[in-house]
Order: sequence, then structure tokens, then C-alpha cells
Amino acid sequence: MKIKVVNPNTSRAMTAAIGRAACAVAGPGVEVLATCPAMGPASIESHYDEALSVPGLLAEIAADRADGYVIACFGDPGLDAARELADGPVAGIAEAAMRTAAYLGGGFSVVTTLNRTTGRAWDLARRYGLAGFCRGVTACDVPVLEVEAAVDTVVAACRAAVRADRSDVVVLGCAGMTEQREEIERRVGVPVVDGVQAAVLQVESLVRMGLRTSAAGEFAAPPPKPYTGLLERFAVGVN
Amino acid sequence: MKIKVVNPNTSRAMTAAIGRAACAVAGPGVEVLATCPAMGPASIESHYDEALSVPGLLAEIAADRADGYVIACFGDPGLDAARELADGPVAGIAEAAMRTAAYLGGGFSVVTTLNRTTGRAWDLARRYGLAGFCRGVTACDVPVLEVEAAVDTVVAACRAAVRADRSDVVVLGCAGMTEQREEIERRVGVPVVDGVQAAVLQVESLVRMGLRTSAAGEFAAPPPKPYTGLLERFAVGVN
Amino acid sequence: MKIKVVNPNTSRAMTAAIGRAACAVAGPGVEVLATCPAMGPASIESHYDEALSVPGLLAEIAADRADGYVIACFGDPGLDAARELADGPVAGIAEAAMRTAAYLGGGFSVVTTLNRTTGRAWDLARRYGLAGFCRGVTACDVPVLEVEAAVDTVVAACRAAVRADRSDVVVLGCAGMTEQREEIERRVGVPVVDGVQAAVLQVESLVRMGLRTSAAGEFAAPPPKPYTGLLERFAVGVN
Amino acid sequence: MKIKVVNPNTSRAMTAAIGRAACAVAGPGVEVLATCPAMGPASIESHYDEALSVPGLLAEIAADRADGYVIACFGDPGLDAARELADGPVAGIAEAAMRTAAYLGGGFSVVTTLNRTTGRAWDLARRYGLAGFCRGVTACDVPVLEVEAAVDTVVAACRAAVRADRSDVVVLGCAGMTEQREEIERRVGVPVVDGVQAAVLQVESLVRMGLRTSAAGEFAAPPPKPYTGLLERFAVGVN
Amino acid sequence: MKIKVVNPNTSRAMTAAIGRAACAVAGPGVEVLATCPAMGPASIESHYDEALSVPGLLAEIAADRADGYVIACFGDPGLDAARELADGPVAGIAEAAMRTAAYLGGGFSVVTTLNRTTGRAWDLARRYGLAGFCRGVTACDVPVLEVEAAVDTVVAACRAAVRADRSDVVVLGCAGMTEQREEIERRVGVPVVDGVQAAVLQVESLVRMGLRTSAAGEFAAPPPKPYTGLLERFAVGVN
Amino acid sequence: MKIKVVNPNTSRAMTAAIGRAACAVAGPGVEVLATCPAMGPASIESHYDEALSVPGLLAEIAADRADGYVIACFGDPGLDAARELADGPVAGIAEAAMRTAAYLGGGFSVVTTLNRTTGRAWDLARRYGLAGFCRGVTACDVPVLEVEAAVDTVVAACRAAVRADRSDVVVLGCAGMTEQREEIERRVGVPVVDGVQAAVLQVESLVRMGLRTSAAGEFAAPPPKPYTGLLERFAVGVN
Repeated sequence: MKIKVVNPNTSRAMTAAIGRAACAVAGPGVEVLATCPAMGPASIESHYDEALSVPGLLAEIAADRADGYVIACFGDPGLDAARELADGPVAGIAEAAMRTAAYLGGGFSVVTTLNRTTGRAWDLARRYGLAGFCRGVTACDVPVLEVEAAVDTVVAACRAAVRADRSDVVVLGCAGMTEQREEIERRVGVPVVDGVQAAVLQVESLVRMGLRTSAAGEFAAPPPKPYTGLLERFAVGVN
Repeated sequence: MKIKVVNPNTSRAMTAAIGRAACAVAGPGVEVLATCPAMGPASIESHYDEALSVPGLLAEIAADRADGYVIACFGDPGLDAARELADGPVAGIAEAAMRTAAYLGGGFSVVTTLNRTTGRAWDLARRYGLAGFCRGVTACDVPVLEVEAAVDTVVAACRAAVRADRSDVVVLGCAGMTEQREEIERRVGVPVVDGVQAAVLQVESLVRMGLRTSAAGEFAAPPPKPYTGLLERFAVGVN
Repeated sequence: MKIKVVNPNTSRAMTAAIGRAACAVAGPGVEVLATCPAMGPASIESHYDEALSVPGLLAEIAADRADGYVIACFGDPGLDAARELADGPVAGIAEAAMRTAAYLGGGFSVVTTLNRTTGRAWDLARRYGLAGFCRGVTACDVPVLEVEAAVDTVVAACRAAVRADRSDVVVLGCAGMTEQREEIERRVGVPVVDGVQAAVLQVESLVRMGLRTSAAGEFAAPPPKPYTGLLERFAVGVN
Repeated sequence: MKIKVVNPNTSRAMTAAIGRAACAVAGPGVEVLATCPAMGPASIESHYDEALSVPGLLAEIAADRADGYVIACFGDPGLDAARELADGPVAGIAEAAMRTAAYLGGGFSVVTTLNRTTGRAWDLARRYGLAGFCRGVTACDVPVLEVEAAVDTVVAACRAAVRADRSDVVVLGCAGMTEQREEIERRVGVPVVDGVQAAVLQVESLVRMGLRTSAAGEFAAPPPKPYTGLLERFAVGVN
Repeated sequence: MKIKVVNPNTSRAMTAAIGRAACAVAGPGVEVLATCPAMGPASIESHYDEALSVPGLLAEIAADRADGYVIACFGDPGLDAARELADGPVAGIAEAAMRTAAYLGGGFSVVTTLNRTTGRAWDLARRYGLAGFCRGVTACDVPVLEVEAAVDTVVAACRAAVRADRSDVVVLGCAGMTEQREEIERRVGVPVVDGVQAAVLQVESLVRMGLRTSAAGEFAAPPPKPYTGLLERFAVGVN
Repeated sequence: MKIKVVNPNTSRAMTAAIGRAACAVAGPGVEVLATCPAMGPASIESHYDEALSVPGLLAEIAADRADGYVIACFGDPGLDAARELADGPVAGIAEAAMRTAAYLGGGFSVVTTLNRTTGRAWDLARRYGLAGFCRGVTACDVPVLEVEAAVDTVVAACRAAVRADRSDVVVLGCAGMTEQREEIERRVGVPVVDGVQAAVLQVESLVRMGLRTSAAGEFAAPPPKPYTGLLERFAVGVN
């Protein structure tokens, strides 16, 4: 089984860390391929960055076939489009992290990077039906590419969030925190969920059950049509 | 006052029709500029098309300054990103059409093009807080670029929807129907809302009140950062 | 085009201020007629006042024909009844202010007059589907008829609300604040929405699009019937 | 203990029927006083009628003191205002009927009079938090003042609603059906809740527990102020 | 009329107090029978205790026929099962307390015993459709069997909750507080609802109206079937 | 890794089938132990059966330590209590099936056994935040212990549900259907999710990530206390 984990920003260091965290939990016989796009933003810290990470992300998903796919950015950019495009099941890390957290306690706190991203986290919690489990979204005010080195700040934000939100689980709100999960959990004292690992295992589980995105409704393959300009090569089913 | 109406697909005929419909309602002294991107899909009929229409759409919004902006596709692609990027207020046509419809009756039916787009319409209704007003979403099973010529089919779908949903207002679920609004309303017998017109007037109203997107929170200008590859020119605030 | 703005309390000074604020934004060729009822409470500060403002308000709406109507009290008293009665579209200022605010940011704070009115604001936010956008309702503890002169108190309440609610837009919760909008916005530093202006422009937009309340459902003209006693003259369609 | 049941329309026959139904269930020692206003609409079949029934209703509530009050119209007109005004607890019949039905099954159907009133029933279900229990609202298309004599039509509508909605309880959506409750229940075969009886017993229960509307928040007595014109006598706390 | 009030824990002292509080409000001619199970936990302070209180509770309900039943623990354990089993109507005290509180103010605070039970209170508020009325759930950190003697602590918690939650009604979150209701109300200054009394009166009201749980849907009598082991005697309709 | 799958009814044949289905998907090195209680109902077809299955289920969970636990009945009986009691993570099959289905399409249909269980399925969908994804719950009217042999009936019910609900995924609403998943999926033509397999893989994933139920809040180990009568041996932490 091959699972492709696409980090939608272009940071190779972060992609490597994501790959290591994914491999650490993937089952025997599961090959994890962590990649990042050839085009797009260096990090995703705005709706603008998120929107513009999608073409590169979709190119990665189309690039070569895997059994399942993970989108490794907590905004879950391009998730619906990826589901239409991909051969196998697709999970976003916000989706997987929040759904996983709901198995573990009465309510979770999301701890994210910049304050401006808290709105997106709430939007996703609502969209996935998890607003009733999400007791708060807190930013630790560290840019995405610096969060890996800022574990003390993240731990402090987690502790404050758990207390303020009266939550009993933490969800890490950025793929950049993935390798710190264990340390953060040990220091904060409640279960801490990392979306990269949760999503990889979710996709592995779907593949093992023989399940993939339904082709019977809204996520059927996109209808073929011409694309022009810079994005011409993205045309599907046309040649 | 200048309002830019961006049709995110690349059909010039549809863009021209959108421009005519917008001009027909814009106030005296309001200049409407209807444009479409130089890159992207010929029409938007999937999440995939929608995602890939966004770079071209954002390039149009960045291209030259207006007082306000309209995104003229019923999926409201790139709306959050456009709000961060634009100098003035931005409205999507689904957002404007559904909010406008809520002033006019007890509940509305959305009538859209292909069946696969009904999920997106429901997502937007929920996101904008209008799920309680939206009594149904019906597809008339006509592709986007053919809908303008299929007014009989649209009228039949509207009539059926109003009866089945027990609604008293219709929302047109595609910018391609904009010039048929009056005829459809006359033949269906309930108020029919077109999002292009609703959004243009909403933006005009915001500009007249001196209101624009808040820069104090999630829609502040995107933080500058490097972009690579095909999308390098999209980097904001870096040179 | 003639738009009638009915202030449902009987204060002529407040009615005049409402009229000035409405005229300041109405489009060229739009005549704004600001009126108040001949009967009812001097100000609206309770459900009781609100309920008893409605007969006078409805009499104003029936009095002489306009193209559209605004109900200029933040409780939106009599809105459903007015929709049945009026020839043209009707908007309430709470409805228009809150829907307008949703175009401008991630979430808004309502700042109102007396603490006892906060419940009504929440009820309306829920009813209009905007509870997900409304992050808080704060009273500045100033009676309705004194609020115009208490701009410093209002500004302080707005600043506190934005901070406490983590919101990025303010909605003014009383028609008495309408002429202070600009000053408040300038001093608070986030977009500030006044419902009087928002509702006038909303009604103007509806009229320009040729849209009016649906007669096909719950807002059809009220069925004729006898009325007795003090309210005899309110009988509709009976003579 | 004295409970005042105010029928907000001016039909004496209907008021008498309401009084008989209320007496049939009130506890020993409970005096039921069924009244109707001296002013207002002959029946309530629109938002307009409902709004204009409120002054007469409030005058009845203020008229002479009771231990508790019932508003006997399924739109619950003036309920919030009555709570501010009354010395004792107040219940509306829609509120009481729907809350009572929630004790009795998995979900209820409301069967009401005219089709145009179904929107109001849904609004109330949502407002009282009962939208999850309300599986449908059906009109039997009989005017309010004729519904008492149309028991066959009501029974047929109830049977159809239970089947279509997959519900196991019926809520009668008009005070005019109150004396037919038992017959309807016998013929339909599921529990049938009448709001008049439910509200009278609810108020009796509140009084027996020593509970009344909180004066600590939104339902405190209305602040005194001048009223002018036709409604001058409604001024509270001013003389 | 005979109403059986089952305290699902095995404390005889608490059962007696519950019986006294119930008798104090029951109508003339209503016999209240307060009982507790022969098996199960000494008090209910966890989901585990709650689940294991149910067999004893159901045995009490099956034991000898009454006209209606009350489950006197704020977690409403076994409520759905009891509805299937019982001949007459059944009410839980959380259900009755929260629904009763909704008649009395703008929003209530629940004050409960141990912190770990707050999640269950929120779950029930959501399930009964009362999340919009419930403004907070606060624990006073006193075990169930000690709460009767800790009235000062409860009063302090109520006062703090009303202030923090901006609520105007208190709901007592444990049957052990039932005899302190009046004192707490007097000292806190807002209406205080006790579920034992509210549920007894609710059941009395249902019986007086001739209403009982619907047998037409999900609460029909359980289908007969074999039970084995310790619980063999619980088999219904099998002999 | 050892995962215990507890079938809460006492059917050994059904337990064996559940065990086979679980083993078919569990990862290499995962030992699945499928058990059923020594006491309780032969099948679970009512709230009554469900409530009385819980003591036996909890005894199984306490019996001997595993790394994680699955409750293999679609009502998820005793889930909260099991989470307090168990050393490792616990998943219910309704919870896991519905959350899994949300990764696969726009909306799912639940197909269950007896009609009376549809209410419970909706309750769980709401509780888990999945009401927005659940488009319908349909019963195929086959008792639990006969459903394994009634695959044609189940397939017909699935096809009808997908059409009526406009869904694109099916959730099997009974553990008794687990071995038919593949056949049903092949014949119905949309992804079909079985909760037994979904829950086993979910628990396996949680264990692999080192995650277990939070002990910091509502699911901490139950406080020790005396139990009496038949259930005396269930006392925790007392000896």
C-alpha cells in the first residue's frame, strides 16, 4: 500500500518532518511518500496562501498514483477538489485530527500558529460537524516555519487553552508541530492529536477496508473541459 | 465609483452577459467593469474547476484597483482570499443572492445547473447561516455554458422546486442565468433573485456607506512571502 | 423612488436624525421619507414597548404608498406584519445591519443600549441565521434617547466588545447611534455598521432589482376580517 | 389559585370553548378565568392579525391580577411583553404544546389551520429549541373560526401528517381545536397534545412550585415612559 | 392518581428527601411513592454509575403499576428504556427542570455537584433542544451524598454562575438539592428550578390530560426476547 | 496489540461473524478478541435491550486487559461508561461508521434493522455532530438475528435509501450485517461502511498513535463507591 502525503507549502524541511512523523505510525507494508509542490507559497498563513497552494497540491495528487492521499496543511486546502481527482481516498489533517479527538474526550482545544488562522479552524470545525466538540481555538502567535522550534511556546499555549476552554484533549493546528506531538502531550498532560498521523492512519484504514471516495455524487471525476493560460495543463480528460 | 465584476470562468460571452445584467441595476455614476481571467477553466462545474479558477480570479482582482469587487460564480470561489487581497469590499454571488432572498419570503429554493453542484450550494447556505431559509437545492441538469439558452428547462425546474420545497422565493444558482431573471420571475410567479445583480448592488451599498473588509482580523492583507514556480508572480509584498 | 423609513418610537428628534443619516447614503433620485407614528411609546426599551410600537408603525406603513420601507428600531418590531401589509419590500435595521456585517469580517459584536435588550439582539441573530457570525452582544447602559449624546460611552463599549469577543466588525444596536457611525468607526478602528443606512440601501437595491416580498406564501396580504374596539380602523379589506 | 387564560382574538364562542377545555384539566381549587380582549381582530390568521392582537391581550393581562396567565393562540403573540408585564408566570400554548409533546414520543407533527401559518409554527419550534422534535407542520386549510366544526378534516390531516412525517405524536396548532382533542386522539391513534390544556397545567405547576418569571434580566418590568395617541393608556408606571 | 418517583441511587435518606419535596408540590389526591432500587451504586457520579443504576431503576418501574413515573437523577438514566417499559408517562428531572426553566427567563445556569458531570448536563441540554437556553453549567465540587448539607457552597456557586453566565434562572443539577430549593432561591435572588418537583408536576399534568408515551414509534413496548445470566429476570414478555 | 471487540448481545454466532470481519481488516500483529457477555439480551432491538446490555458489556471490558476496545452494536450502548472504565481507547461502531462515512462522500444513508431503531440512529448522528452528513435513516424491517441471512432485503433497502435520500454512501446500521459489506457494496454501487471494521481500525490507529481516552475530564476513572444487590461486584475501587 502506498500513501502519498502532500504538504501544500514548498518547504522541503517541513515536508521531511511530515514524512518522518507519518512513517512512525504507518502500518507494516505501508509505503509513505511525502511530497511538496513545485509551485506555490513557502508557507500557508492566509486564505490567499491557501487558495494558491491548491494548483501545486492538485498537480502532486495527479502526478503518480497512490492508494490514498493526505493533505498535510491544517486548512485542508483543496480537499473537495482532491477527492474528485484522486483515485483513492483522501483525508485532510484538520478533518482527521478533529474527528480523532472526538473519540478521546469531552471536548478539545485547537492550538494553531497565527491568530488570523483561528477563523479558518472554526469554519472547518463547523463544516465537519465538530463545533460541539471544539471548545476553543487558540493561536500561539508563531509563524508556520518557526513553529517546530518553538515547542515551549506551543506547550504554554496548550496548557492555557486546556484551562480556559475546560477541554480535555488538544488538537495541534499546524503540520509543522507533528514531530513535537509526544513531547507536547507529555508536558501538557492530556491527549494531544496530530493531524498528519491521524490522517495517514485514517487513509490506511480506508484502503484496508476497500473504501474510496464515492463516485456517485458530488465527488465524481470532474467533467472534462478546456483550460487556458498558465493552467492549461490542468485540463482533465481533454487532449 | 468603479465596481469590478469578475466571472471566474474564461467564457467571454458569459462575461459580457454578466456585465449587461450588472449595468442594468447599478446606480447612476457607477461604472461596472466585467472581466474574466486569462487562465483557468472554460466553465466551473466541479470542485476541481472551482479550485483552479481561483488563481486567475485573484490575478483579476489584483490587476487594477476598483472600489469594490464581485465574484460572479455561484460557488463563490476564492472569496476569503479575495477579501484579504482587495482594497475594497468583495461579495460573492451565492452569498449575495441567498442573503437577499432572505428579505423576500419565508424560504427559498436554489435552482442550479448540474446535480453535482447541489452539495456546494448547501455548503454555502450553511456557511452563510442560511440553511434555515434554504428549503431545497434543485439541479436542472444543464451545463453552465448552455444554461442561458435553456430558459424553458430552468423555468420548469423552478416551478417544480417551489412546489416540492414549499418555498416562496427562487435563487438562481448560476451566473449564466442572470439575463433571464425577469423572464423566469414572470413565468414562475414568485420573486426570483439573481446573484450577479444582488452582489453588485450589495457592493455598491457598502461603498456608499464607506464600508470595506475589516483589516483587524482574519481578512487582513496576507503576510508577504516567497512563491515559487508557475505561481511565482502571485507573491504578495515581496520583490 | 420613494423609501419610507419608519422610526417606531415617537421621538421627532430621533426621527430627524434617522432621516439625515438615511439621506446621506441614498442614491441619486431616491426620496427618503422619515416618519414616526402618531401613537405609541416615546422610546423602545422593552418587549412591552416594542409590542406596543407596532400598531403605530403599521399605520405609518399603510398611510401612503412608497416603493420600499425600513423599520428603524433594532428590535425589528412588526417586521413580519409589515411585510404582509406593504406594497414594496421591507427591511428591519437589525436584519440589515447584521447581514451587512457578515460581508465585512470574520465575526461582529453588537453594541446596544440597555442590558435588557441583549436577549432580543441574540434572538434576532439566531432567527436571521447569524448566530455563527455574532460573537457577542454588549450593552453600554445608556437609555435610547440619550445614546446620541453618549458617543464616548459607546466608543468605549465598542472597543471593549471587539477585544472581549475577538471580533473584527461592530454593529450598532440602536437607531439612535446612526449619525455617530463615522466617528465611532474612526475611533474604534474596525468597520462599524449602522442598520439605518444598511436597511435603506438594502431596500433601494431590492427596488432597483424589481424585487418585493413574495405574495405566494406566508407574507401574502392578510386575509380581510373585522377588527373591534380601539383598533377597529386597522381592519384590512373590510369596509 | 386563579389562572387567566386570554384568547387574543375577540370570538366569545371560541373563548368559552377554551375556558371549558381549561377547566376540564385544572386541578381542584384552581379557578380558570377565560377572557378575550375588547379590541382587536376577530381571528388570528396572519402576522398582521397577530401583531394587532397584542395590545388587547396586554390590556387583559394588566386588567386584574391572577396567579398565572396563558396566551391561548398558537402563534404565542405578545409572550415576551406579557412576561415583563405580568405578576405571575405566563405560558403560550404553542410553547407549552410543543414542550409537552417532547415528553411523549420520538417526534411530533403540528397540524394547523391555514397554510400561511406554517411558517410561524416552524419559527416558534426553532425558537423554543424544538426543531429537532418537530417533524412536520401541516395545514388542514380551514379558517380558525371554522376549525371547531371541521373535526373530520383535522383528523384526516393528522393521519396524513403522522404517516408523511414518520412522527408518533400530534400537536394541535390552533386553540380552536381544544375541545376536539380527545376525539382526534381516539381516531388518529397517537397522543394528541392540545396547547390550551398543556399551558394551563404548566402555569398551575409553576405557581405550585412558587416559580415566576425572573425579574433579574430581560423580563424585568418595563421601564416607565410616556405613551401617546390611541395607546396612551398603555404607559406603564407613569401617571 | 399514583406517581412513582424512582431515585436511581440506593441512598434511603436521599430517597426520603426526594419524596418529601415531591409531596410538597403534588396536587390534592395525588399519591407520591418515592423508591430506590435494591441494587446498584450508592450515588451516581460517573457515566459508569449511571449506566449501572439502570437495571435497578427499571426493576422499580416494572415492580408495581403507577399512573406516571419520575426518574430522580439529573443524568436522566434509563429514560428511553423506561418510556418503553412503563404503562404511564415518564419524565426525567434534568429534562423537566431545563424545560421548566425555559418558561421563566432569558437563559439558565445549571449548578451541579462534581465537575465531571458537567459534560452530561450539556449533552442533555443539547438533546432536549435547550442548548440555546443553557448559558452555563457549573460544578460546586461537592459529592452527591454531601450536597444536601452544603447549601452555602451551592448558593455561592449559583451566585457566581448567574453573574458569569449572565443568566436569570438557576437549575439545580442534582436531586440531592431538592429540599434546599426555596432557601437557595431566596438567597440567590433569581428563580431556582428543582427537577424533582418540576418532573412530578409534569407527570401529574400529563396524567390529568390523559396523555402517555406514544406506542406508535420508537417507544413501543420492547419486543419479547430471552435474557440470560444475572439479568435473566429482566426478559420482557417471555416466560 | 490486542483489541477486544465486545458484541453486547449474547448471540455466539453473531459474535463469531463480528470476529471474522474484524480480523479481515486488522493490521499485521493485531490480535482481535471478539467476545459477548455472559448476561443480557439475546439481541438488541429496543432502548430497554440496549440499557440492559450494558452491565454485561462493562463486565467484558473489565474482564481482562486489552490495548483498545470496540462496542459492536449500532446503538453504541455504554460507550461513555466504557471510556471511564477501560485502560485503552474505546470506539462504538455507530460512531466509527458514521465518522468514516463522512470521509467518503457528500452525505450518507443509514440502513438499519427494525423501524423502531431509527430514532436512536438519528440521536447518535446528532450527538456525534454528523446530522449534517446523515441524509436519512431507513429500516429494512428485519430482526437483528435474521439480518445476516436477509442480504437481498438489505440491498433493496440500501438502493431505495440512496435514491430517496440523494446520498452517495451507505452506513450499515447493525453489526449483524458486517460480513455482507462487500457484497452489498458491489450490488448497490456506492461505498458501504461497516462499523465493526471501521471501529476496529479506528482503535488500532489510536493505539498506534499512543492515544487513549483523556483522564483529565469527564472520562476519568469512576470514583470508587459501594454497589449493592445483584450488581455488587461492579463496585470499582472498593474491596
